Amino acid sequence: MKTVDPVQKAERGSARDSLIRVGVELCTEAGFQATGIEQILRKAGVPKGSFYHYFSSKKVFGLAVIDAYADYFCIKLRRVLENSHVPPLQRLENFVKEAEKGMEKHHFQRGCLVGNLGQEMAGLDDEFRERLEAVLKLWEAQTSRCIKEAQEAGDLSVAHDADLLAEFFWIGWEGAILRAKLTRSSRPMHVFAQGFLAQLKT
Amino acid sequence: MKTVDPVQKAERGSARDSLIRVGVELCTEAGFQATGIEQILRKAGVPKGSFYHYFSSKKVFGLAVIDAYADYFCIKLRRVLENSHVPPLQRLENFVKEAEKGMEKHHFQRGCLVGNLGQEMAGLDDEFRERLEAVLKLWEAQTSRCIKEAQEAGDLSVAHDADLLAEFFWIGWEGAILRAKLTRSSRPMHVFAQGFLAQLKT
Repeated sequence: MKTVDPVQKAERGSARDSLIRVGVELCTEAGFQATGIEQILRKAGVPKGSFYHYFSSKKVFGLAVIDAYADYFCIKLRRVLENSHVPPLQRLENFVKEAEKGMEKHHFQRGCLVGNLGQEMAGLDDEFRERLEAVLKLWEAQTSRCIKEAQEAGDLSVAHDADLLAEFFWIGWEGAILRAKLTRSSRPMHVFAQGFLAQLKT
Repeated sequence: MKTVDPVQKAERGSARDSLIRVGVELCTEAGFQATGIEQILRKAGVPKGSFYHYFSSKKVFGLAVIDAYADYFCIKLRRVLENSHVPPLQRLENFVKEAEKGMEKHHFQRGCLVGNLGQEMAGLDDEFRERLEAVLKLWEAQTSRCIKEAQEAGDLSVAHDADLLAEFFWIGWEGAILRAKLTRSSRPMHVFAQGFLAQLKT
């Protein structure tokens, strides 16, 4: 039986993680197609030629990058939108503020990985398309739960359809991130979020 | 003095026009970076190697493609949003309906060229970025004028800020087009537009 050196195994794991981390970074900036494998390897400090040791194709790598981003974002959304110490609608505002700060921190060079890949993959690949849509559906569900909590707390009229509002939010929010990258300013995020929240108060 | 054969001149003009027309087509589908020069020449039926006869670089070509799309879209917006035979808010609904039909016609493979290029160019090129932002500003101004007409006609409360509403619309609408490509359905456009128009009625 072939034995695997645990150190070698750990290193192998960490090289894979580095590749994915760098992949997330580069894909939130320039998208998937414009990001080259050599560029990823160089930035991750992983030896040339070892890419296909970890991933059978660039597509498999891309799907792993989406999963990693989805996991990271899910934890973030849970932390902000399920924070029971804060009133539900304030949680939504906090999410927006945190996103604005995040975009500013990276000088509006990094957008939403799901929006970026959504834009370029939509016309191309079904597996990417379905994966990206599923991630957005999860975010909508989490946002809808937060809106329903606001309704239960009496902060928001029950006449509003929480699922529809959450869907509206994520449709427009991806547009706001796209536009913030274009204008290099958080104004589009602010304008969209304020318009959305004003709508809830009616 | 060198004379130019008028037929040759016309043909040259039409080859340039073909390249731009095909460029608009391919960029609304796959974006700019993924669209290769050879692919454009092949689809336009223009001989290989003649690309640089018309455009000094792919970038110059890209800027010409944006201008051509902006001109086309400006005429479309003028036709729909300045149609004095239709009440102003109905014009906005007509714009949305026409866009939904357009997306359906092309099986949700073609989005908005400005949104597509905005997504991929935002992190990259200042000249593209500024050109795309200027086009969106024109569309906002045209939309704002339509909203102000609705206010003058008494169809919409003057408490609304028309410029801000138009800005909100275009931020979210680009998100809706992106999402429609991803879901291959006009639902995101419908959900966003209905939410936006409901907001106007408050």
